[in-house]
Amino acid sequence: MSRFLSQEAACLAPYTPGEQPQDQQYIKLNTNESPFPPSPKVLKTISRAELMKLDLYPDPTCGPLRRAIADYYGLRPENVLAGNGSDEVLAFAFRAFCGKGKGVAYADITYGFYRSQAAFFGLEPAIVPLREDLTLDVGDYMEFSGTIVLANPNAPTGIALPRTDIQRLLDADPDRLVIVDEAYVDFGAESCAPLLFRYDNLLVVQTMSKSRSLAGGRLGFALGSPSLIEDMERVRYSFNPYDVDRLAMMAGAAAMEDRSYFDACCASIRQTRAWTVGALEALGFTVLPSQANFIFAKSGQIPGGELYRLLKENGILVRWFDQERIRDYVRITIGSMEQMEALVDQVDQILQAW
Amino acid sequence: MSRFLSQEAACLAPYTPGEQPQDQQYIKLNTNESPFPPSPKVLKTISRAELMKLDLYPDPTCGPLRRAIADYYGLRPENVLAGNGSDEVLAFAFRAFCGKGKGVAYADITYGFYRSQAAFFGLEPAIVPLREDLTLDVGDYMEFSGTIVLANPNAPTGIALPRTDIQRLLDADPDRLVIVDEAYVDFGAESCAPLLFRYDNLLVVQTMSKSRSLAGGRLGFALGSPSLIEDMERVRYSFNPYDVDRLAMMAGAAAMEDRSYFDACCASIRQTRAWTVGALEALGFTVLPSQANFIFAKSGQIPGGELYRLLKENGILVRWFDQERIRDYVRITIGSMEQMEALVDQVDQILQAW
Repeated sequence: MSRFLSQEAACLAPYTPGEQPQDQQYIKLNTNESPFPPSPKVLKTISRAELMKLDLYPDPTCGPLRRAIADYYGLRPENVLAGNGSDEVLAFAFRAFCGKGKGVAYADITYGFYRSQAAFFGLEPAIVPLREDLTLDVGDYMEFSGTIVLANPNAPTGIALPRTDIQRLLDADPDRLVIVDEAYVDFGAESCAPLLFRYDNLLVVQTMSKSRSLAGGRLGFALGSPSLIEDMERVRYSFNPYDVDRLAMMAGAAAMEDRSYFDACCASIRQTRAWTVGALEALGFTVLPSQANFIFAKSGQIPGGELYRLLKENGILVRWFDQERIRDYVRITIGSMEQMEALVDQVDQILQAW
Repeated sequence: MSRFLSQEAACLAPYTPGEQPQDQQYIKLNTNESPFPPSPKVLKTISRAELMKLDLYPDPTCGPLRRAIADYYGLRPENVLAGNGSDEVLAFAFRAFCGKGKGVAYADITYGFYRSQAAFFGLEPAIVPLREDLTLDVGDYMEFSGTIVLANPNAPTGIALPRTDIQRLLDADPDRLVIVDEAYVDFGAESCAPLLFRYDNLLVVQTMSKSRSLAGGRLGFALGSPSLIEDMERVRYSFNPYDVDRLAMMAGAAAMEDRSYFDACCASIRQTRAWTVGALEALGFTVLPSQANFIFAKSGQIPGGELYRLLKENGILVRWFDQERIRDYVRITIGSMEQMEALVDQVDQILQAW
């Protein structure tokens, strides 16, 4: 820390991303990337001609990308904000819709970045504990009058809420905004995007890092009423209006347009997930019901931290959270079938030696 | 504005970027892009194999990119922070080094984004007027005890400060941080980067959008002491740690490594600038002495707003700021020689018809 650090920066709560070793020595099942490369249409769109135009600024309105996203959801471009990954999009939403007199609530066990972003904007969040079984009961949010942030499916549990539950929250108070972070929705949960036709107190946030195989491209987006999107653009233009680069913009549009590749990738991950859950249950694991491209699992035998450590020693990275209530679990990304077979083999060997 | 907008977001001062028409109908001399494509090494580095890896997150530590930047300046990677354009890097610096009890000062006529970022973080900046002739006198900042932000060369004037002037500020108070925004430094001004070996109260911010022909790639960086960089990483990890995508990271490293292409591009722009200044002076313009890839010029005959409007009608975009003290001027990017000839021809015709 330098002697120049501001008071406000001293109070931040920086996020700890999953390990990203650059030596490619590990089977990486710790950051929920897709095991599939991006759509062939993405590869095709990033042509030499496009690279030659890198001297020119991207379109700050992200026109073609927003149109492609809007088309996919049957919305209009005015319903879409694009940004540099859903972390940035969420940060814009936190600034636009939370502040003095407008609190924010989220679960005790959920995506860790909400805490970082609340601290970034000096917010004092209301932390709402998940139920004993790590499920979320929307009833627990009914009395809260500020902005609600829900990850659906939740991370790191993978447990999804039915759309009707979120609808109950939207109906209960039309003057309360509900932000639904759908980073993992494409792997089996119900998106709230169709509710945008009926509710203007709903903001849906998604990412292209998981189901669209573009974690390396940094693309996230928000879907909402034109006035919600306008509010977020106000924030974006106050921070960094050229946040989506030319190549990412083209890659994202191409990825949205290639529906059959997207559907095939998601279906494959669901299938591999089902196999992995079965295999781990056969080894005595409890696996929470996941609608995400990861599972949250605990062994009756070995503590989560030990399992994480021994897997890493044997070349497999999973994610372990040294956090109350979930220390027994590890979060395992659903990779390719070969990767999951290697994982299950390794877990089996670790348990036998334990 | 929605009914959900926070008080804080209502107080923002969004930046207005230069017009970015997407129809390519204009000779665009309004956003200081390079007329040259990126280095051939950039084109080569973005291979099909790299595109195939877009499903994987980028290295959040930006390792290879920071090494390439550090190598160029004879620094260590610990002296470098990389981000999504210098706007984002500046925002991180504003948060890290300005806040309660630590004010920020900048000139009345300078890069407009400082105002947006000060508002973003709820700062009340000290605005220090440029001298009558639009030069900056560092003496005017001597008594200010907070963080000083200087664009060198300044925008939109193009006027550069000698390095010794900034050294006077650094010497005067070692406990005061000076942020030097060197977005345009490569076109003829003296970079403060060599001063980093002697001063730990200096932060240098640069962009790859101008001299490195990568405006479309969104890359900026800061150079400073390891503890200043650590402070900024603290902010970055609280906001969006995966802000630099895989392709941008490779493009940026390749651009830094290709010194001869970079030198040739900068030299060519200086040459074209000299020609353009001469041609406009011959048409009766006053042109401020520019060390940037743009010039700031006023005609004795036609008001700046009118010249901007008539050039646009005739297919040439320049930038005009409807702002006190500089309304008579237009800012003209130095493009290719052909573009500047077209500009001068058009200006000549407009003046003859005026």
